[in-house]
Amino acid sequence: MMFNGYNEGLVESIRLWLKEDVGSGDITTMTTIPAGHESKGIIHAKEAGIVAGIPVAELVFQVVDPSLSFTAHVKDGDHVAKGTVLAVVEGSTHHILTGERIALNLLQRLSGIASRTRMFVDALEGLEARLVDTRKTTPGHRMLEKYAVRVGGGSNHRFGLYDAVMIKDNHIKGAGGIRRAVERARSHIPHTMTIEVETESLQQVEEALDAGADIIMLDNMDKPMMKEAVRRIKSKAPHVRVEASGNVSLQTVKEIAECGVDVISVGRLTYSFESLDISLDLGAVK
Amino acid sequence: MMFNGYNEGLVESIRLWLKEDVGSGDITTMTTIPAGHESKGIIHAKEAGIVAGIPVAELVFQVVDPSLSFTAHVKDGDHVAKGTVLAVVEGSTHHILTGERIALNLLQRLSGIASRTRMFVDALEGLEARLVDTRKTTPGHRMLEKYAVRVGGGSNHRFGLYDAVMIKDNHIKGAGGIRRAVERARSHIPHTMTIEVETESLQQVEEALDAGADIIMLDNMDKPMMKEAVRRIKSKAPHVRVEASGNVSLQTVKEIAECGVDVISVGRLTYSFESLDISLDLGAVK
Amino acid sequence: MMFNGYNEGLVESIRLWLKEDVGSGDITTMTTIPAGHESKGIIHAKEAGIVAGIPVAELVFQVVDPSLSFTAHVKDGDHVAKGTVLAVVEGSTHHILTGERIALNLLQRLSGIASRTRMFVDALEGLEARLVDTRKTTPGHRMLEKYAVRVGGGSNHRFGLYDAVMIKDNHIKGAGGIRRAVERARSHIPHTMTIEVETESLQQVEEALDAGADIIMLDNMDKPMMKEAVRRIKSKAPHVRVEASGNVSLQTVKEIAECGVDVISVGRLTYSFESLDISLDLGAVK
Amino acid sequence: MMFNGYNEGLVESIRLWLKEDVGSGDITTMTTIPAGHESKGIIHAKEAGIVAGIPVAELVFQVVDPSLSFTAHVKDGDHVAKGTVLAVVEGSTHHILTGERIALNLLQRLSGIASRTRMFVDALEGLEARLVDTRKTTPGHRMLEKYAVRVGGGSNHRFGLYDAVMIKDNHIKGAGGIRRAVERARSHIPHTMTIEVETESLQQVEEALDAGADIIMLDNMDKPMMKEAVRRIKSKAPHVRVEASGNVSLQTVKEIAECGVDVISVGRLTYSFESLDISLDLGAVK
Amino acid sequence: MMFNGYNEGLVESIRLWLKEDVGSGDITTMTTIPAGHESKGIIHAKEAGIVAGIPVAELVFQVVDPSLSFTAHVKDGDHVAKGTVLAVVEGSTHHILTGERIALNLLQRLSGIASRTRMFVDALEGLEARLVDTRKTTPGHRMLEKYAVRVGGGSNHRFGLYDAVMIKDNHIKGAGGIRRAVERARSHIPHTMTIEVETESLQQVEEALDAGADIIMLDNMDKPMMKEAVRRIKSKAPHVRVEASGNVSLQTVKEIAECGVDVISVGRLTYSFESLDISLDLGAVK
Amino acid sequence: MMFNGYNEGLVESIRLWLKEDVGSGDITTMTTIPAGHESKGIIHAKEAGIVAGIPVAELVFQVVDPSLSFTAHVKDGDHVAKGTVLAVVEGSTHHILTGERIALNLLQRLSGIASRTRMFVDALEGLEARLVDTRKTTPGHRMLEKYAVRVGGGSNHRFGLYDAVMIKDNHIKGAGGIRRAVERARSHIPHTMTIEVETESLQQVEEALDAGADIIMLDNMDKPMMKEAVRRIKSKAPHVRVEASGNVSLQTVKEIAECGVDVISVGRLTYSFESLDISLDLGAVK
Repeated sequence: MMFNGYNEGLVESIRLWLKEDVGSGDITTMTTIPAGHESKGIIHAKEAGIVAGIPVAELVFQVVDPSLSFTAHVKDGDHVAKGTVLAVVEGSTHHILTGERIALNLLQRLSGIASRTRMFVDALEGLEARLVDTRKTTPGHRMLEKYAVRVGGGSNHRFGLYDAVMIKDNHIKGAGGIRRAVERARSHIPHTMTIEVETESLQQVEEALDAGADIIMLDNMDKPMMKEAVRRIKSKAPHVRVEASGNVSLQTVKEIAECGVDVISVGRLTYSFESLDISLDLGAVK
Repeated sequence: MMFNGYNEGLVESIRLWLKEDVGSGDITTMTTIPAGHESKGIIHAKEAGIVAGIPVAELVFQVVDPSLSFTAHVKDGDHVAKGTVLAVVEGSTHHILTGERIALNLLQRLSGIASRTRMFVDALEGLEARLVDTRKTTPGHRMLEKYAVRVGGGSNHRFGLYDAVMIKDNHIKGAGGIRRAVERARSHIPHTMTIEVETESLQQVEEALDAGADIIMLDNMDKPMMKEAVRRIKSKAPHVRVEASGNVSLQTVKEIAECGVDVISVGRLTYSFESLDISLDLGAVK
Repeated sequence: MMFNGYNEGLVESIRLWLKEDVGSGDITTMTTIPAGHESKGIIHAKEAGIVAGIPVAELVFQVVDPSLSFTAHVKDGDHVAKGTVLAVVEGSTHHILTGERIALNLLQRLSGIASRTRMFVDALEGLEARLVDTRKTTPGHRMLEKYAVRVGGGSNHRFGLYDAVMIKDNHIKGAGGIRRAVERARSHIPHTMTIEVETESLQQVEEALDAGADIIMLDNMDKPMMKEAVRRIKSKAPHVRVEASGNVSLQTVKEIAECGVDVISVGRLTYSFESLDISLDLGAVK
Repeated sequence: MMFNGYNEGLVESIRLWLKEDVGSGDITTMTTIPAGHESKGIIHAKEAGIVAGIPVAELVFQVVDPSLSFTAHVKDGDHVAKGTVLAVVEGSTHHILTGERIALNLLQRLSGIASRTRMFVDALEGLEARLVDTRKTTPGHRMLEKYAVRVGGGSNHRFGLYDAVMIKDNHIKGAGGIRRAVERARSHIPHTMTIEVETESLQQVEEALDAGADIIMLDNMDKPMMKEAVRRIKSKAPHVRVEASGNVSLQTVKEIAECGVDVISVGRLTYSFESLDISLDLGAVK
Repeated sequence: MMFNGYNEGLVESIRLWLKEDVGSGDITTMTTIPAGHESKGIIHAKEAGIVAGIPVAELVFQVVDPSLSFTAHVKDGDHVAKGTVLAVVEGSTHHILTGERIALNLLQRLSGIASRTRMFVDALEGLEARLVDTRKTTPGHRMLEKYAVRVGGGSNHRFGLYDAVMIKDNHIKGAGGIRRAVERARSHIPHTMTIEVETESLQQVEEALDAGADIIMLDNMDKPMMKEAVRRIKSKAPHVRVEASGNVSLQTVKEIAECGVDVISVGRLTYSFESLDISLDLGAVK
Repeated sequence: MMFNGYNEGLVESIRLWLKEDVGSGDITTMTTIPAGHESKGIIHAKEAGIVAGIPVAELVFQVVDPSLSFTAHVKDGDHVAKGTVLAVVEGSTHHILTGERIALNLLQRLSGIASRTRMFVDALEGLEARLVDTRKTTPGHRMLEKYAVRVGGGSNHRFGLYDAVMIKDNHIKGAGGIRRAVERARSHIPHTMTIEVETESLQQVEEALDAGADIIMLDNMDKPMMKEAVRRIKSKAPHVRVEASGNVSLQTVKEIAECGVDVISVGRLTYSFESLDISLDLGAVK
């Protein structure tokens, strides 16, 4: 959903991010390196992992200077070994160095997210459950981070507050019960939208089913309750999807999937992470 | 440098971040909760750590709705136990829920950074060396993340490419040596600016000293070389500051400080992190 | 979904629209009317219809000058007679006149849309089919125009290209058939999103059903074909919704609804319209 | 005044309009159509009328993707028959479909305005009076809609509150009479600007003449009064222009012109309209 | 035309200007002065002149912090002696110092422009000719600088390329003569707009008159030619205004006016200037 | 630090400045000159001086129309005689005329600043003191004006409130003395930043020295006091730089330099100026 579409929003973000770093000017580069100096910037991995964000890095350099040439040596989703050259950017040394930090900061973070996602996906191998992210993304980076989750083999949950109804505990309280919340939502939303209800007990599961939820989320349930919830839902309304959520770790994800849920959402795919170590070395243009 | 100054830039970022999450509207809240409904949102820590970002969370809610009342129960820099109430926001339920996710996403990340910084600072207790961050921050979040480092007890390195000269390997190559790089920079920059040179050997340290660098960075040197570098610099030019950098961990930071450097810079304060788990529960307004 | 939520995007649009009209200054008002002059602006209907946009007009005046007082005499959705006072705005004459044109232009258009929608809704009285709009809205005014449709008693189709999948003829060609299009979409989209398929024949209806579409649109079918399509869909997959589309007029809408479709979409609710004639007269402040 | 000049403002509007429709991404196109797929989009009229906005549609596609090729088959102002191909856009299928709706929504509206304008202009054939628009345009679309009026053969009234003085009833009240209003305006405005006064009686016409108005508008006068007003103005001050305004329809416009006025302003050229039905069909690239 | 109208555009400019100066933060103030410290900032003239920009300075402080209180001691247009207190701003010391430089830079420049304008206006005392500015203003400051000209007693020429036609040498060449230029312009522009023609010879004056120009500019003519031009224009077309332009100085402006022209335009009112020396001293809040 | 770097910020400013001048359209050019008309615009000096801003003028024309070709005949810093052709821009007459005024207004101002700076620099010939500017620049033009100072042979003081600490009288009062101000600043700022203290007496000079200031500014001191201050500073702390400030004129600058200061700051380089007279003549394209 990105990088072969219309990326204006991302270009605007990159401009803001460059402004944050460059401010009134990259004084080191401007004062030490002669105008017109040309180089090759070699971007390489300093540790192994899944790469994500190569087209983002390319876009950063294009925004800085459209005349820079950028050659990708790997593609997003590739598992790379330590030392692998990921891409080479060639042209004005001034402009390569001006874009370097933002390009690397993005590449490192997105690759870190893709690498962690892949671990979860690997843990689910052979099972049907889909791994999805949450809205616990870095403000201003949601579309990129959700892209990195897909690159790592995961799927996405809703993109924001605008594209699906998700009735949580707080909404149930405010509306006065699950049934009223679902009914009010259904009567106001487009027929193209779905309603998901977060439940914490089997009774809430039954209420959500009766109210006509399209998706039922089982929040922090133990395995036996989860299995029972899946059983009840699938027997009554086979087209309703079931999502598990809450403190999912690499250790527990497989067991959860084996309870028969359709979707498992994992906040820590994006809200904590280890960046993948990536750097840029300058070489002479031959 | 923030929160008692002019925060227009931060307000603009918050607007962008809200737009990313809210998009064409928070359909769940708008359709399930009656207009005019009021609540209390209680923000509490779900694990122990150093809190950072309380004034940022407050600003998020103010941007959404200036009539929301926000009461902080702790202040940035406090070490809180699991379960501690951090703040309470009261007013329109619609607006509390619209701002919730962005406020929490920021609070969790900044507290995570402050908590990790505090661990490094504690490891340096009793030593003179200053712990500082780097430019490996999340694009669009630099000023906030550098603030969180200060909240955690650390100091900041330069804010961007614009406020200090940092001559790295790539600039040395481009300029044709340390001496030429320093001289060219000195002749062009304001007299209020300093020049830092990154060195990888004792010979480079000597060159940087001779060229008149204000700060000399020792990059990835082993302890004996670091000690020797510090000795040479301090004996020749006592007012020149020495910075150590490269793969600094909680295990190694103390030893590095004991080499006599003035400053230790640590990329991982901001470029990987564990968010502190924080959530918001809605309660009735009595 | 608007007017009790976070309206920042609308405020930004109003600023742009004021800039378009006011430009370098409202020279007539500034040069002819003394600074400090105060008035009452009485907004009244010059013809009968359904009012929509009162809170929008209020917001326009608030953006121009937060100290203007605005009192609504009717509320959105009311059917008003010719001559009815809709609202009164009181305060600086300069600021009332500066905001007047934008406020009226919006109020007239939105009321025109609500009035036409109401006619369609009245034509469907007693029937179950839902009347919805399309994406044929005025660029920059979609959320407002979709709001006016709701005020008139209609419902909304998807808000944009981002919140639901709608597979049309062009996508079917590009993907190589309905089945492939639906399968590819399903594997990439969040589990919270639905897939609608546009069909022009009973064969396409069957293909869409088999592929697992959530919604099937019957495009420009005649009544018998439409009835047959509804019959086949409802017997095979009762939870799949059926939408009718194409050249729906006040004359034909009832017959279409009687074919048993769930939803009828009507482009002309927003893409052609008669503004409702509304004007503002200045009176003295007593 | 557009399309051969500097169009930055229009490009910015198009970006905003695309953002409104595309939001976080055109998920249907991105998920169903392979990256790299190319097509021809054939834009054709589904009913007869005057075309306006071809260069606007071209600009929309250029903003989405500068590598799309756009070939106009007709030019703005042409009267086209039902079925006429207006333009062909060729290149990335993703980008053609992403721009389609905004391009069509603009083209349909502008052509609708030009078509209606042409009817009025035709009704005035052989007469000297100039047909002009008003400020009752769609917020955010004024320059485009005024362009469409010119394409249809009409002329423009002032562009906004900033480029001419127009003293209306409300200003006359605020200033304390026509004479004072005109004098105050004249002493403050640039010598390059004109003053128009709106009058509702022959006495007001005399006052405006005596005060030195450059243009006198006859608001909602009946034919005999209008003729008398024209006679008095032209005999006293031949260089003063006379404008008729108020409830002008296709039926009445000719009679009004025959009263001898120089200019007739018609609000309904832009504030109500029938879009011209135009669509885009995708064809294979041969 | 400003300061009692809608000033959104100016507020946006002030935000940009503050960003330029404050950037990532006013580090001196933030680090040296305790949060919560309050002061009085006394703004006083360090030399005599005409003050302009008091409401602009007030707006700067309001943008920085709406809780600052600002009390003007003089008003725009006043002639002040050295040492006069112009205004006092009171509240947060941090915010006073953050806004200080931008407020002073604007006040100094605008007062400089008003002071110089007043000298020209004084030189014209007793004569009818109007003194006007040009488009040779500082980019981004036009409306403010034209305001300062009015404060100094002058009038304004057109505000930009958008509000009047000014046919210069280059346009005459491009159009193929004065007559064709005027005719083409007249047929395309609103009837509310005027046409000014720049002439360099009596023959061009005659052509402009014949073509129906509303205003004729005499560019760099000597006195006898100017007088003759005025005579011919006024005898043929008394309502046509005459403007003199070109190297007008304090020494020559009176003689030019005595040639009978209506308007004299002077570029140096805004394109070179001496700022009036104004500063801000901090005092304790009693 | 500009023009071989990333100029996005300047491009945005140019867009704003063009919008200010062009507004809703350059009506003269659009209506008098046929679309497609091409010309050569010859930019030449109408008086002698130092040229600055050639690349800025080029950027203006590129922003208006990237297909215009721009050929510089001189380069920034050249001393040109009256009549010298500075540059030629060739292409669409419409676009040359649309960009003309903004390009010239910038070129004239920047060349005026460079020319005045050169006079000061010439007055310092043979002396070591560096001439620097201040923050008394035109809001929105700081980076350009500081660039013009460098073109004229001067150096820059800090760029804004964000890149160096400058403790003035007001901060000393707020902090409770020089020592406390310096200590508080030092403990909060990055180790890459310097602290400058403004002093008005020898006692303050001693305090600043003792407190560890990096730079000491001597504000408005007479020559003997200045010499004594320099003597004391250099004997105690040879690496501390000394700056002289306050009412520096072409007459006094040399004597001040001879007091031994390192840096002399001159507000009037930017806060008052004479534009260099430059204009654009249109010629036919051969």
